[in-house]
Amino acid sequence: MSLHYPNGKKYIPTRENKTISSTARNMSYSNRGMILEDDLNETNQYYLQHGIAVIYKKPTPVQIVHVDYPQRSSAVIKEAYFKQPSTTDYNGVYQGKYIDFEAKETKNKTSFPLKNFHAHQMEHMKQVIKQDGICFVIVRFVMLEEIYLLEGKHVIAFWERMQMGGRKSIKKTEIETLGHLIPIGFHPRLDYLKIVKQKLFA
Amino acid sequence: MSLHYPNGKKYIPTRENKTISSTARNMSYSNRGMILEDDLNETNQYYLQHGIAVIYKKPTPVQIVHVDYPQRSSAVIKEAYFKQPSTTDYNGVYQGKYIDFEAKETKNKTSFPLKNFHAHQMEHMKQVIKQDGICFVIVRFVMLEEIYLLEGKHVIAFWERMQMGGRKSIKKTEIETLGHLIPIGFHPRLDYLKIVKQKLFA
Repeated sequence: MSLHYPNGKKYIPTRENKTISSTARNMSYSNRGMILEDDLNETNQYYLQHGIAVIYKKPTPVQIVHVDYPQRSSAVIKEAYFKQPSTTDYNGVYQGKYIDFEAKETKNKTSFPLKNFHAHQMEHMKQVIKQDGICFVIVRFVMLEEIYLLEGKHVIAFWERMQMGGRKSIKKTEIETLGHLIPIGFHPRLDYLKIVKQKLFA
Repeated sequence: MSLHYPNGKKYIPTRENKTISSTARNMSYSNRGMILEDDLNETNQYYLQHGIAVIYKKPTPVQIVHVDYPQRSSAVIKEAYFKQPSTTDYNGVYQGKYIDFEAKETKNKTSFPLKNFHAHQMEHMKQVIKQDGICFVIVRFVMLEEIYLLEGKHVIAFWERMQMGGRKSIKKTEIETLGHLIPIGFHPRLDYLKIVKQKLFA
């Protein structure tokens, strides 16, 4: 059994949710599906603790419908629904610059399907770029254990190619050419800001 | 009946939640308590639509424990809890600059109680300032219909005064002296970025 948002998007519980969720624990999902998020959380923690950057994953947007209040000290949400996010998942500040990105995984080996994004996110990335924010996606090829940083402007261009009737994915070779491989390290695990500084800072 | 977080903080439903929540609708809370959030949402929408800035309120952090999946198309969260946010509520980008703020209201007429903040938020503001982000709080004096922008560095100083044994609030006269009155307008309702540009941009 797998969970889907009303839009058909899969609900993948985070490690944090998983620890106390017997329901989530029993759901069938790829453990590997959480690695990128975990690695990014660890990396962002590292950045925070070392005063390098302040970057957080945004909370999952939830529409709260019913709240119970059984005891003085605790409120329990009894009915709520997942909402489609209007933005990307991660943002924050690094050396005065606004950083904004989305992280996605694919089991595909030769391309990255654009259905992993939705139109709102493209619109958001355009708006961020217009405000001189630094905007990108981090794409993990699960089977190849390769992780790339691809600037938002390229993602938008591929999205628009699709809308013009072109292919529904970004070829891996295109990502290799236009993007930047993020080496997998120990601590931090994914030092993406090193790439940001080297390649994206004007 | 009012809702409290485990830490004793009040749960104030947003207008959005309210519209479909009969539970929330019946709770006793001040309608006026939502005006600041609504005004800021309207203002941020205005900024977005006019290409002025990209600033969002972060979703309320929720710890999801149990999810039901009655139909193929919908997941229902059946048990979840409010989590204490580790950051401020609003962030985004304005002319390349990282913007980060918290919005709070008080019914007090002569001072702003510091219990409206928690230690995590002070720590967050310090980290944002260290990264050259623009960080402030927006304080609304409900009874006086006056709204001020006060830079994070001042809020931190008042918090530290309290920790040294000093007063547990910021005097309104202190806010008047160090902060900046935000005029209430029509569209946008609270043009706080005008203040940011005039007073906070280096």
